[in-house]
Amino acid sequence: MSEASIGIGLIGCGTVGSGVITLLGEMREAYAQRLGRSLELRRVLVRNTTTPRDAVVPANLMTDDPETFFGDPDIDIVVEVAGGLDPVGGFVERALAAGKHVVTANKSLLAARGVELFALARKHDVCIAFEASCGGGIPILQALKFGLAANRVDALYGILNGTCNYILSQMSDHGAEYDAALTDAKAKGFAEADPTLDVTGADAAQKLAILASLAFGVAVNADDVSCQGIDEIEIEDIHYGVELGYAIKLLAIAERQDEGYVLRVHPCFVHMDEPLSQVRDAFNAVSVFGHAVGHSMFYGHGAGQMPTASAVVSDILNVAAGWYPQAFKSMAIWPDQHEPSQMVDPDDVNNRYYLRIAARDVPGVMAKVAKIIGDLGISISAILQHESDEDSGFVPLIITTHDAREGSVRQAAEALAQSDVVAGRPACLRIIELPTG
Amino acid sequence: MSEASIGIGLIGCGTVGSGVITLLGEMREAYAQRLGRSLELRRVLVRNTTTPRDAVVPANLMTDDPETFFGDPDIDIVVEVAGGLDPVGGFVERALAAGKHVVTANKSLLAARGVELFALARKHDVCIAFEASCGGGIPILQALKFGLAANRVDALYGILNGTCNYILSQMSDHGAEYDAALTDAKAKGFAEADPTLDVTGADAAQKLAILASLAFGVAVNADDVSCQGIDEIEIEDIHYGVELGYAIKLLAIAERQDEGYVLRVHPCFVHMDEPLSQVRDAFNAVSVFGHAVGHSMFYGHGAGQMPTASAVVSDILNVAAGWYPQAFKSMAIWPDQHEPSQMVDPDDVNNRYYLRIAARDVPGVMAKVAKIIGDLGISISAILQHESDEDSGFVPLIITTHDAREGSVRQAAEALAQSDVVAGRPACLRIIELPTG
Repeated sequence: MSEASIGIGLIGCGTVGSGVITLLGEMREAYAQRLGRSLELRRVLVRNTTTPRDAVVPANLMTDDPETFFGDPDIDIVVEVAGGLDPVGGFVERALAAGKHVVTANKSLLAARGVELFALARKHDVCIAFEASCGGGIPILQALKFGLAANRVDALYGILNGTCNYILSQMSDHGAEYDAALTDAKAKGFAEADPTLDVTGADAAQKLAILASLAFGVAVNADDVSCQGIDEIEIEDIHYGVELGYAIKLLAIAERQDEGYVLRVHPCFVHMDEPLSQVRDAFNAVSVFGHAVGHSMFYGHGAGQMPTASAVVSDILNVAAGWYPQAFKSMAIWPDQHEPSQMVDPDDVNNRYYLRIAARDVPGVMAKVAKIIGDLGISISAILQHESDEDSGFVPLIITTHDAREGSVRQAAEALAQSDVVAGRPACLRIIELPTG
Repeated sequence: MSEASIGIGLIGCGTVGSGVITLLGEMREAYAQRLGRSLELRRVLVRNTTTPRDAVVPANLMTDDPETFFGDPDIDIVVEVAGGLDPVGGFVERALAAGKHVVTANKSLLAARGVELFALARKHDVCIAFEASCGGGIPILQALKFGLAANRVDALYGILNGTCNYILSQMSDHGAEYDAALTDAKAKGFAEADPTLDVTGADAAQKLAILASLAFGVAVNADDVSCQGIDEIEIEDIHYGVELGYAIKLLAIAERQDEGYVLRVHPCFVHMDEPLSQVRDAFNAVSVFGHAVGHSMFYGHGAGQMPTASAVVSDILNVAAGWYPQAFKSMAIWPDQHEPSQMVDPDDVNNRYYLRIAARDVPGVMAKVAKIIGDLGISISAILQHESDEDSGFVPLIITTHDAREGSVRQAAEALAQSDVVAGRPACLRIIELPTG
C-alpha cells in the first residue's frame, strides 16, 4: 500500500455497495485522520454500468470489464459485496492471487469455498476480512476471534435471521398468523419476494457454520447443520408458550459436547428471563458462553444497508491499518487452519420438549398418552390442559418434558400419531435452556 | 519478543491475578497453538509473598522486590492487575520506559493518568491494552475501537456497575428496600465492605470516561461526568415506574450534541421495551448508537474473577500476536491522540422527568402544581393519582413530563418544595428515551 493513500476496488454496487460508497464519502476526513492516509475508491466492477444506484459514483470509476478492474495497479483492497458464487468466487480468487486483501460480505461463498480461499490468501500473504458475512453490523466475528480469545467457547445461541425474527415477533406480539406475518414482512422490506432461504433456516445455517468454525476452531460446513424452518409454526403454540413463560425464536445453536459438536437451526421456546427471548423484530443477537467469561451477548441489526456497510467499512479500516493482516498472519484461528470436527448424531441430542396433543376427550386418555411417552424413557415435566367448551371431541393437551433424546421424542410423536386416542400428529417444539453463566 | 516464547510479568496476585494465572495454566497448549509460541509466566510482583493465593504460583516466581521484577530481561509483557495509583502508576511507567507492553485492568489509573501513560507508551514504541478496565469480560473497548470503526458514535448508554444493578434488581424484582438490598449484595460478594465508590456512581463515571473517550475520540476525565448515586432511591418510585412501564437503572450516559458532549451517571427510568431495561442482577451492558450501525448492545459479566481474567488474557494474546501493537501504532484512536472536548452545562440537558409529589388532599391542588410546572416551561406528559385511603392528608401525585431543561426541573422541584400544597421535596427521576436506531 502506498504511503499517501489506500486504493479500494469495489465489486458490486447494489444496496450494500452503495452504503459502502456513502460511508467512504461522508466519513472521508475522519477515516483519513484515523489512518494517517486516505481511502480512495479506484474502481467499481458491476454487471451493468447503466443500472441506477443509491450512491453517486463517478462514471469513470464504473466498469463492467473485469480486465479493467483487475488491471488497475492502484487497488490495494478488493471489497466484494456482489454476493453469490459465480462469477464472484473467481473474482475473489483473482484478487487474492494478485496480492490484494479481500473484504467480503459473502456468506454463501465462505460457506462453500471458505477453506480454499483462506489458504489462497495465506499463500499470497494477504488476508480475508468477513465481518459482514454474519450478523450484519454486530461485530461478533471480531469478538470471537479477539475479544474472547482467552476462552474455550462452549456454546453459542444466535438469532441470525432478521426475516424470521420479524415474522415470529409479529405472530407473538400481534397475534398474526404465519402467512399474514410473512406478507407483512415482504411489504416492509424485511423479506425477499422469494423468502425460501430465510424461512427454511438455510441462511441462518450458513451464518452458524461461520460462527461455529471461529468459536470452536474446527472445520464446519453448512451441511453439518441440521435445519428446520419456521413455516409450520402455529399461532396457538405461541400462545401456549407465553402461558408457560416462553418466547418462540428461530435459534442457531452450536454446542461443544464430549462426543462432538451439535449444530442446528430450528424454532424453539426460550424462557422469557433470557436476554435472547427479548430480541424483537428484525434485530439479531448472539449469546456466547465462554468457559472464563461466562455468558456474553452481542445485539444489533443483522442486515440492512448501513449496518452491513458499517461492518464492511470497519473491515476496510482494520485491513488498511495493517493490524488485521498481522492478526491473519500471526494467529492460527482462521478457517484454513481449523481441525476437522466430529458431529453428534442429531437423534442423540438431548433437549426439553413441548408437545401439543389433540387428545380424545374420554376417560383414560392421559394414562395412555403418559404410557406411550414413559415407555420411551421420556420424563414429563409439566402438563397443561384447559377446560374445553369445544364440541370436537378432542382437547389440546400440552406436555413439557425433562431432557429427552431427540430420537426418542420423534418415536413418541410417531406413536402418539398412531394412537386411537390422539388426532393427527402432535405439535412438537424444543425448549432450549441456555447454560447458567 | 523471542521466537519460542513470550514472557509475562504479573503485578498483583489477588482475585484477578489468580484468575489470569489459572487461565495461562489451563489453556497453555491452546494458546501456544494459536500463537505459535508459548506464553511463559516469568515473575509475579506482590506486596507480600507469603499471602495465601487462589492460584498455585511457583515460589521462585514470586517477588516483593520491584528491582528483581524489572531486572528480568525475559519479561516482554507486563500485566498490571494490582489496582490503585501508587505505587502501581510508577510500575507501569517503568515498564513502558523499559520497552515492555502493558496490559492493565486499572480504570482508576487510566482515568487519572491515561493520556500521559499512552504518550509514554508511544514514545517507547510499545502499547497499552486495557479491555478489562471497563465492562469486565465484555469486549466493548475492542468493539468501539475496531468493530464499529466505520461509525461516528452518537451516543452510548451503559449499565457499568454490577453492584448497583444487583441492588436495583433486588429492589425491583423482590421488593427489597435499599438498605436490605445493599446488605444482601455485601453478603453475596456483589458489594465491597465499603460500597461508596459503587453506590455513588463514581466507579461507573470512571468507566464512562474511558468509553466516551474512545467512542467520541475526545479527551474526557472522570471529573467531566456529572454523577448521582442510587442511595436515595425509594421503593415506591420503583413501583410507580413499573406501573408506567419503566425499569429503574443506574445508567452511564454519553451523548454527542451540537453544543458539546453530555456525560452523566444517574439512576433513571428506562422503558421496558429497551433491551437495557432487561439487564438484571450483576450483569453489565452497553448500548451503542453509531450513525451507520444504528443500535448495538454488548452484554455480559462486568466484574468477577474469571470474566475479568478473560479480558486481561485476551489482551495478552492480542498483544503477543503483534496485531494490537500494530493497531496502537497505525490508528490515531488512542487517548493521547484525542482532541479536547466541550461539555454541555448539565443544567442545559433536556430529558423527560418523573416527579412524585406529596400533594395536600384538598381542592385546587392540581391547578397549583400544574401552574408551578407550566410557568417554568415544562410540559406535562402524564399524570397518575390513585384514590387514597390514607389519613395523612397528603396523596402521592405522579407527573411525567415531556423533554424539559434540567435546570428548569430543578427550579420546579424547588418551587414545589416551598409550596404550601406540597409536603417535602418531590422525588425526581429522569426518564431516558434511547434513540431509535
